[in-house]
Amino acid sequence: MNTFNIALIGCGTVGGGVVKILSEMNHTLNERAGRAVKISRIVELNPENAIKRFGIQKEAFCGGGKKLTVDEANSYISDILNDTGIDLVVETVGGTGDFVFNLCVNVCKSGKHLVSANKALLAERGKAIFNAAEENNVSVGFEAAVCGAIPIIKTIRESFTGDEIVSVSGILNGTSNYILSRMIDENLSFEQALTFAQEAGYAEADPTLDISGGDAAHKLIILMKLIFGIDVTMEELKYQGIQSISKTDMDYAREINARFKLICFARHDGDFIYGGVCPMMVKDENVLSGVNGATNAIRVINKYSGKHILIGAGAGSSETASSIVADILFIARYNDRMNRTLPNGKLKFKGLKDYTLPYVITFETEDRPGITGLVTTEIGRQNINIYTVTHNRHVSDKALFSIETQASTLKQINAAISEIKTKGILKCEPVVYPILY
Amino acid sequence: MNTFNIALIGCGTVGGGVVKILSEMNHTLNERAGRAVKISRIVELNPENAIKRFGIQKEAFCGGGKKLTVDEANSYISDILNDTGIDLVVETVGGTGDFVFNLCVNVCKSGKHLVSANKALLAERGKAIFNAAEENNVSVGFEAAVCGAIPIIKTIRESFTGDEIVSVSGILNGTSNYILSRMIDENLSFEQALTFAQEAGYAEADPTLDISGGDAAHKLIILMKLIFGIDVTMEELKYQGIQSISKTDMDYAREINARFKLICFARHDGDFIYGGVCPMMVKDENVLSGVNGATNAIRVINKYSGKHILIGAGAGSSETASSIVADILFIARYNDRMNRTLPNGKLKFKGLKDYTLPYVITFETEDRPGITGLVTTEIGRQNINIYTVTHNRHVSDKALFSIETQASTLKQINAAISEIKTKGILKCEPVVYPILY
Repeated sequence: MNTFNIALIGCGTVGGGVVKILSEMNHTLNERAGRAVKISRIVELNPENAIKRFGIQKEAFCGGGKKLTVDEANSYISDILNDTGIDLVVETVGGTGDFVFNLCVNVCKSGKHLVSANKALLAERGKAIFNAAEENNVSVGFEAAVCGAIPIIKTIRESFTGDEIVSVSGILNGTSNYILSRMIDENLSFEQALTFAQEAGYAEADPTLDISGGDAAHKLIILMKLIFGIDVTMEELKYQGIQSISKTDMDYAREINARFKLICFARHDGDFIYGGVCPMMVKDENVLSGVNGATNAIRVINKYSGKHILIGAGAGSSETASSIVADILFIARYNDRMNRTLPNGKLKFKGLKDYTLPYVITFETEDRPGITGLVTTEIGRQNINIYTVTHNRHVSDKALFSIETQASTLKQINAAISEIKTKGILKCEPVVYPILY
Repeated sequence: MNTFNIALIGCGTVGGGVVKILSEMNHTLNERAGRAVKISRIVELNPENAIKRFGIQKEAFCGGGKKLTVDEANSYISDILNDTGIDLVVETVGGTGDFVFNLCVNVCKSGKHLVSANKALLAERGKAIFNAAEENNVSVGFEAAVCGAIPIIKTIRESFTGDEIVSVSGILNGTSNYILSRMIDENLSFEQALTFAQEAGYAEADPTLDISGGDAAHKLIILMKLIFGIDVTMEELKYQGIQSISKTDMDYAREINARFKLICFARHDGDFIYGGVCPMMVKDENVLSGVNGATNAIRVINKYSGKHILIGAGAGSSETASSIVADILFIARYNDRMNRTLPNGKLKFKGLKDYTLPYVITFETEDRPGITGLVTTEIGRQNINIYTVTHNRHVSDKALFSIETQASTLKQINAAISEIKTKGILKCEPVVYPILY
């Protein structure tokens, strides 16, 4: 077959990694693709960094390695879109603005395949891009958009095809996981651990998107679209970050043999997909509790083949780039046989508050006889089964309570807490987290 | 496209599961394949069990559901091989005898694709089958042959294509892992745990293949062929089972914060692939140490994307069947674009004894001053760096030693032990296991 020609728009950390792998593995990649695979054009406003960091030849860049004005870049992009010799465009520009959105749509409209690692764009404005691809019979590769190196997208599309996915959950944000791991293992506060994460390069100067759960939410939205065919907006998906986890919360987790993780969770049940992002206390017997540092992990539960866990690097230049290269090869090999449609969305979305999960409720009370009976009676009145009650820490005149419930809804939990509050025995606002077994 | 017709030879636990999934998910599977996928023929000597267990219609079987003689079965198989309407044959006969070997080769020669879960056959006689497939331009699907439900084969072939695999290791035998998990968690002897495994259906009446490391070796041989293009025989691959792990060994593992696992290990280094199967002490910080019960896990280390771990069910009817169905769909979709060649074998094989690994050496000595110096001096003389020395257990007149070394070869370790033996201070034969971090 003829050469498979690629244009790369944006040559930063990830784009540069793609050029590097395609150059270093050129011979092997051509063999694997069954045809020559070649980067024919690179458009980058400031090629200097990429030239230095990845050793890319100046001549590889449109403009010969000089800085480009926005107009010049647009002109090169326009040439690429009009060039019928280009088969695929890799977008590593980033952001969710109109420029990159229009670029992606126009790539599809020009009859070229698109590969993108842009999770925010695909989560927030992906529907129009996927539709444009379907209408124009081209593929969108987005392996790198969900958990960097972990091949979850192809696993779902090509390996779990003889099965029905019931639920997907996991640790989809490396920054949060790094911060939580250090908080737990070194008994640090959130602020201390965040500072260390920033110093180690695992958190941005402005870490909001990562620590708020927003980045994890983007990935969960993409997975729900791919698996269940459902379009969920960031507004519909309730996501909660790790900022408000206190040292006391950490102590409670330790007490029930669990570790805090920022968990993305989606489950199919009847006509609904229940989903959300929030910190959960993950029990030690769950493998996810042992996934620490910046590592990501995804758990998929299938109807026939049961529980699967994939663990790997969620970010990084060559890690993310290797997923992009795998997408390029897959399209180069199988393009004309690929099913470009995502599943059809007949299912409806509901938040996790409507789904039954085991919870842990922690609070401080007066330290006097009769409190346990009073508290557990109120919980039982809401039809919540209690798994364990721990109140073995008594500090001066306070008793610290930690109650693990069996599966119940947040509504039931909140109703029980409201009733307990009326008794005037609480010394602090109760804290509630789901438990993941 | 026209219907994709399948013949199933053998309809036991796994074959029955394939019929069940194809029947229950028929509509979805056809959509995913982009064409109708249909089991047109089933050949089974004793269809009665499958009819009862999986609710398969009698009419689906060649012979209408009656018992078949071997001659009748052979005649039906011959019809299938001659039928140009059949696109793919699923072999779930099992065994490594000439009958099933010839069946697989003849399927390929007849121009039909082959899907098989038969790890023993592919490991011991696979070369001729893969060659026949390549010569006849048909595909061999063997996802189900390595770790049942875990999609490691497609992950290697389709997802890690933008990368170079450096090493593969893991827990590839569920029976051994189940036995070891119970030995560790309930302080059982090997014999006790084996009995429980047999009662729970996790071990066969004759468990030899599983507990000897033979079954794990089969899977490692297939992985080494797929990843590194190297043909290794069962004779060349040194494999060691779990039978000789004692309760004392278990205590030593606990002491260095590790758990025993039967580990398959292969690593590319220069012109060589170093590989083997043996029990290792897996450190608690390694996620594999938390993979317990009959669950399987595979760790792949890639040049660009780093460490990946896949965890899932290694056996079971519907679990294994789901992998077979995924193979069927993949071939139905992408058949005419598939690269049928396995990598070319220029690399040479060496056993793990030639590879440097950290080891733990345990033994009992006289309990008197000077022993530690004497022992560690001999180890140092072999250019082995010591990581830690533990000898905190003193029982009557014995001291129990446990020495963790840094990476060294088994040859160095054995040389040090020989020297130590000449000192006349040992009260037992030293026990040596590699450590996996």
